[in-house]
Amino acid sequence: MSKKIQIFDTTLRDGEQVPGCQLKTEEKVIIARELEALGVDVIEAGFPISSPGDFKSVVALTKSVKEPVVCALTRAKKEDIDVAADALRYAKRGRIHTGIGSSDVHIKNKFYSTREQVLEQGVWAVAYAKEKGHEVEFYAEDAGRADLKFLAQLIEGVIAAGADVVNIPDTTGYCLPDLFGKRIKYLTENVRNIDKAIISVHCHNDLGMATANTIAGLCNGAQQAEVTINGIGERAGNTSLEEVAMIINTHQDLNFHTNIKAEKIYALSKLVSGMMRMPVQPNKAIVGSNAFAHSSGIHQDGFLKHSENYEIISPDKVGVPSSSIVLTARSGRAALKHRIELLGYHFEGEDLNHLYENFLSMADEKKMIGDEDLMMLVGLMPVFVKG
Amino acid sequence: MSKKIQIFDTTLRDGEQVPGCQLKTEEKVIIARELEALGVDVIEAGFPISSPGDFKSVVALTKSVKEPVVCALTRAKKEDIDVAADALRYAKRGRIHTGIGSSDVHIKNKFYSTREQVLEQGVWAVAYAKEKGHEVEFYAEDAGRADLKFLAQLIEGVIAAGADVVNIPDTTGYCLPDLFGKRIKYLTENVRNIDKAIISVHCHNDLGMATANTIAGLCNGAQQAEVTINGIGERAGNTSLEEVAMIINTHQDLNFHTNIKAEKIYALSKLVSGMMRMPVQPNKAIVGSNAFAHSSGIHQDGFLKHSENYEIISPDKVGVPSSSIVLTARSGRAALKHRIELLGYHFEGEDLNHLYENFLSMADEKKMIGDEDLMMLVGLMPVFVKG
Repeated sequence: MSKKIQIFDTTLRDGEQVPGCQLKTEEKVIIARELEALGVDVIEAGFPISSPGDFKSVVALTKSVKEPVVCALTRAKKEDIDVAADALRYAKRGRIHTGIGSSDVHIKNKFYSTREQVLEQGVWAVAYAKEKGHEVEFYAEDAGRADLKFLAQLIEGVIAAGADVVNIPDTTGYCLPDLFGKRIKYLTENVRNIDKAIISVHCHNDLGMATANTIAGLCNGAQQAEVTINGIGERAGNTSLEEVAMIINTHQDLNFHTNIKAEKIYALSKLVSGMMRMPVQPNKAIVGSNAFAHSSGIHQDGFLKHSENYEIISPDKVGVPSSSIVLTARSGRAALKHRIELLGYHFEGEDLNHLYENFLSMADEKKMIGDEDLMMLVGLMPVFVKG
Repeated sequence: MSKKIQIFDTTLRDGEQVPGCQLKTEEKVIIARELEALGVDVIEAGFPISSPGDFKSVVALTKSVKEPVVCALTRAKKEDIDVAADALRYAKRGRIHTGIGSSDVHIKNKFYSTREQVLEQGVWAVAYAKEKGHEVEFYAEDAGRADLKFLAQLIEGVIAAGADVVNIPDTTGYCLPDLFGKRIKYLTENVRNIDKAIISVHCHNDLGMATANTIAGLCNGAQQAEVTINGIGERAGNTSLEEVAMIINTHQDLNFHTNIKAEKIYALSKLVSGMMRMPVQPNKAIVGSNAFAHSSGIHQDGFLKHSENYEIISPDKVGVPSSSIVLTARSGRAALKHRIELLGYHFEGEDLNHLYENFLSMADEKKMIGDEDLMMLVGLMPVFVKG
């Protein structure tokens, strides 16, 4: 039987904290609803103690989505956990995500502490969060560089204290897949109560290894992947949701499955890119504008003979519109409405007028408006109704 | 002793064939000289039979660089090889890169051929290219999906025919690192004459695995990595030079080394992005504008306490300018000249005037001009003199 991989999306927390990516609560709600439609299992909604805006967003999200668990980040501190629990009070299923640094470099140079104190504080935080009645996930920050024996001891302690999920982050993006996979395997073999919790992996892309490390973690016993749309996030970003989902989809040999509805990936990628003002480079895997473009003569010839020669994923599988019709300033409201509907969005009345005005301003400057531009315009709309 | 990894850069061939990335010969010469200064071992300069422009560029590059091998791509066809050999006639060290599809899907649906015929044609092409007096590299197109036993037979045949390098490409970006590493290992163990040639790996990024697969290949016996600046290339692109170089640099445990002068990476990334009009997304590993930005409060606090808390590579190691002074339309020629010199470029006289005019037009529109914008302006200059 194939293993279900939980998709934990942190676009609205680890992604949103990047300068320039900040969203209003209403925008977060729009993206959260699309994440629910995409099929993610957990939505990390914010870090409630960090600002009133983040608190408000977490509350709003618990009221806006039905299926996914809504998760709130905290440090291993009483006030953080109190505020997070308060923000989650309306959640059908809430999760407090608490934790502390686990590597010696973090313990010494960030917490000015010792392994013993960190272990004690982590275990205390999990037990305290657990009293709030929500699910509890524990993160062992910088686990990628932590002493393995100590990491195992810490994880065993927090599971005993009630952690439902233990998150093993490669916070600095240091690990290579072999190394990271072996760390997860070590934990499955050396943490006595590991069967009482789910192992999660949270990787960063500083060396371009985030997705590869995530897959290595899943192959070695992890069951949850922490990801963002388009791989946005601190520095070089987080693991890309779309890459993990499509690797699992393409490589049946892994024997994994997710709940992700792949055909919704492309539209959500555009929405997030537009709302967060974070461009996706043309050569980005799965969602880049060139990801399915065959350009050289040899490739075009081979592709036309038989698409499988150069294509391992059909673009319609991830919702890339098959034609690339272009609109101009001469195009009317009806043409715009029709094209937007093909992209999965429905506008009418005042909303359509508003969109059309923005469309005309863009068309004046850019002349040719492609699907990508349209998705950007949709992403900038304050509210839209999903078709 | 650590293993020397040959860096084979194909920015000017596999990168340049992407729509919109086409360069004039003079622009290719500028990039090739910077690639030489960066320390790459091989520059793939073009596909001479594909166009007179590509032919001319290959000839120009053989006259413009001294150290790197200059390589020209061909199909396994007499006319291709004749034209490539002609284009390489002035090369101090030239290499003909010939090859043919090796997977059954390519053999059947692209070449309408059989394994036997493909083997025969590949061996013939290598022997014929070898007569031209240049080095010969053979590519087994779509090796990532090829039958392993047949692939080994093909590789053994072309090495016997004189191939100096055998390139094992994952043309469609299908492989995962374990799978790809095992393919390379299989070849080292099952191709009897494998010690007579160098194994090269050429990966594509369709599933976000290009860099991870390349490293897996190197760990299993390959000695050459085929890469591009910023990972540009067909569809989701090729393996990023900067990621491979900095993984090897950061992970001394791999026991590899390259000739890459890491401190030149950032400037060349900007130059290629500007000249080829291919934006680099902010969260791109190593060279993205956010790659070294610490944004969240927790991260900033930890970083200020001790940079190693959140940084595995110091940005100055890859040539990222340490200050981010911003220029505006009020800035004069001297300020522009000074800032550009800090970025490694020297302009004066008419060239400086030309650059300054472009700078003013940009400043009128953008208000704040950062280092990234300046590198873009430099990249758009027809000629520049390296300081």
